[in-house]
Amino acid sequence: MAHSRTRQRTRPGLTVALAFAVFLAAACSDRTAAPNRATAPDAAAPPAAAPKAQVVPEKPADPLASWNDGAAKQAIVGFVERVTREDGPDFVPPSERIATFDNDGTLWSEQPMYVQLAFALDRVQELAPRHPEWRSKEPFKSILDGDTKAALAGGEHAILDLIAATHAGTTTEEFDSIVRQWILTAHHPRTGRPYIEMVYRPMLELLAYLRANGFKTFIVSGGGVDFMRPWAGDVYGIPPEQVVGSRAKLKYEVRDGVPQIERLAAVDLVDDKAGKPVGIQQQIGQRPIAAFGNSDGDFEMLEWTTSGSGARLGTIIHHTDPTREWAYDRDSPIGTLAHALDEAPKRGWVVVDMKQDWKVVYPYEQ
Amino acid sequence: MAHSRTRQRTRPGLTVALAFAVFLAAACSDRTAAPNRATAPDAAAPPAAAPKAQVVPEKPADPLASWNDGAAKQAIVGFVERVTREDGPDFVPPSERIATFDNDGTLWSEQPMYVQLAFALDRVQELAPRHPEWRSKEPFKSILDGDTKAALAGGEHAILDLIAATHAGTTTEEFDSIVRQWILTAHHPRTGRPYIEMVYRPMLELLAYLRANGFKTFIVSGGGVDFMRPWAGDVYGIPPEQVVGSRAKLKYEVRDGVPQIERLAAVDLVDDKAGKPVGIQQQIGQRPIAAFGNSDGDFEMLEWTTSGSGARLGTIIHHTDPTREWAYDRDSPIGTLAHALDEAPKRGWVVVDMKQDWKVVYPYEQ
Repeated sequence: MAHSRTRQRTRPGLTVALAFAVFLAAACSDRTAAPNRATAPDAAAPPAAAPKAQVVPEKPADPLASWNDGAAKQAIVGFVERVTREDGPDFVPPSERIATFDNDGTLWSEQPMYVQLAFALDRVQELAPRHPEWRSKEPFKSILDGDTKAALAGGEHAILDLIAATHAGTTTEEFDSIVRQWILTAHHPRTGRPYIEMVYRPMLELLAYLRANGFKTFIVSGGGVDFMRPWAGDVYGIPPEQVVGSRAKLKYEVRDGVPQIERLAAVDLVDDKAGKPVGIQQQIGQRPIAAFGNSDGDFEMLEWTTSGSGARLGTIIHHTDPTREWAYDRDSPIGTLAHALDEAPKRGWVVVDMKQDWKVVYPYEQ
Repeated sequence: MAHSRTRQRTRPGLTVALAFAVFLAAACSDRTAAPNRATAPDAAAPPAAAPKAQVVPEKPADPLASWNDGAAKQAIVGFVERVTREDGPDFVPPSERIATFDNDGTLWSEQPMYVQLAFALDRVQELAPRHPEWRSKEPFKSILDGDTKAALAGGEHAILDLIAATHAGTTTEEFDSIVRQWILTAHHPRTGRPYIEMVYRPMLELLAYLRANGFKTFIVSGGGVDFMRPWAGDVYGIPPEQVVGSRAKLKYEVRDGVPQIERLAAVDLVDDKAGKPVGIQQQIGQRPIAAFGNSDGDFEMLEWTTSGSGARLGTIIHHTDPTREWAYDRDSPIGTLAHALDEAPKRGWVVVDMKQDWKVVYPYEQ
């Protein structure tokens, strides 16, 4: 398993940020084309004047243009149309249109390793001078020797040690700026792209489409909440309070006259599996009507979401494309998908076949 | 200390709900009159046509009409104008316009006892048949004997026991419906009004005014999050995910084939004092630029908010009106205000003198 070292370039952050701003602006313009225009903030804008001679009405742009027409797209659009039809039996008021999205493997790629793990590995290099004891202590020793595979042989336990050691002992604001710096400069080991370009274009369209239809979109991820919040606004259009994730215990204190919130080396919530409905209840406070995931870690979120009354949508992103992305499910240690895949047909969950259902995967393909 | 027993009337809930809907509609109409109209959803509505002969422009309605002109109102309006002026030095983008409000004593009355305590007392009566042991166990025995004063003589410890015993052992959805039913039928012991009518009109105007200026408004209260969320949307226009409060530990499980989230008899967060900045970071994920409280329990929230860089607003509601509301601060066991009041001048916090600064207190006065 290769490990991407952080590469510094001349202000690449700005370039990436600008590229993304342009892309997101394009994605947002889809909002006016959504079926339920009344809920879009820009619905009151006058339509562009059409040439007088033209009588055939222009077909509105497809808000899910990166999705091939098929069962998955039809199920998603059908659900949105049902819950937004005011005189229909399945109408849901906007205040209850809550949609939750897993992040790793659902909104962006999680192979060959979780992005946050790549971040933790880079943090080890960064912090090593202050930790001479790491030279003889695993998993740090192997990481410093460049042997990521050996470092991670200890499995989940080794990873948790690593996250704890590299994430704690900072204030929330220090950690925020460390993440912001890293996410703009680190690159994916296979594509060489900044990680924030390895988000799925069809899912960005879906987020925008749901918001244009009055939904509030939330991330509900096993990843660290403090790792996602610094960039989720720019990349997904999701503000910090709509990001739910695993979190460290926090402590407020005034140190040398300066109030700060310290991140402690203890876990407060593991927002995965049965922790997802708990995180949802704690932070969102109501049951979603739509949920999107890609692994067995999302099973309980999908179960909780789709067992409520009224119209519900549970969706699994199935990684089936070894060429454009990755193909994995049951046997992958990252993003294991077995139980949820077996249960999907019984529970009426939509399974998105990445290879079949997506015209493009990443925004930069177009 | 008198204890208000729940009084059942013929569908009083609907009457109250309708009365509130009317009131809130009126309050919301203030939004169009706010200085920064561009952020109000209804900003695109055409202005009413004025008689052609009239040349003097109509003065827009005051969005803070229930506030007397004075230092407090000027400070609040001045702050909002500074952070929303796009070419000004203190401009704050909308995504960072976060305002947090304590609830008890800041948005509604907390005397002669916290509303949630009245709820807990009513729950004891309700649950007593299932708990014969309460007949000989304090504080339940005294409550069942009608002696609330004796029941609460045990101070905070007795209150916590009471809350734990009456709030745990339900699912989140059961608890939600219990609160919804109670809040519409219970009445304040002094005014005989439903509790949700004992919210402060000037603060409702302030919430609407801030939202019309692009702020997101949050409740950050020591009260239970599950006690506030069921009605905060209708009463304050604040959705569940924007309510931060004390909370019980939760457990997701499938019982008899039905997924549910159980509220356990253990505290997960006490969202008071130093717990407020922690609750803010966990759930909101960024530091507020404006905070409103009324007691020493809000000190750390105000400190955290106002020690950030740029323009900041810290505000204390001082209960100075024994006629229309209550007058209390240093010596009151409920809503003790001493340290924060002493610190306010040094820290530039605005102190709202309820008696002087508010034209009206409750919506029903007009």
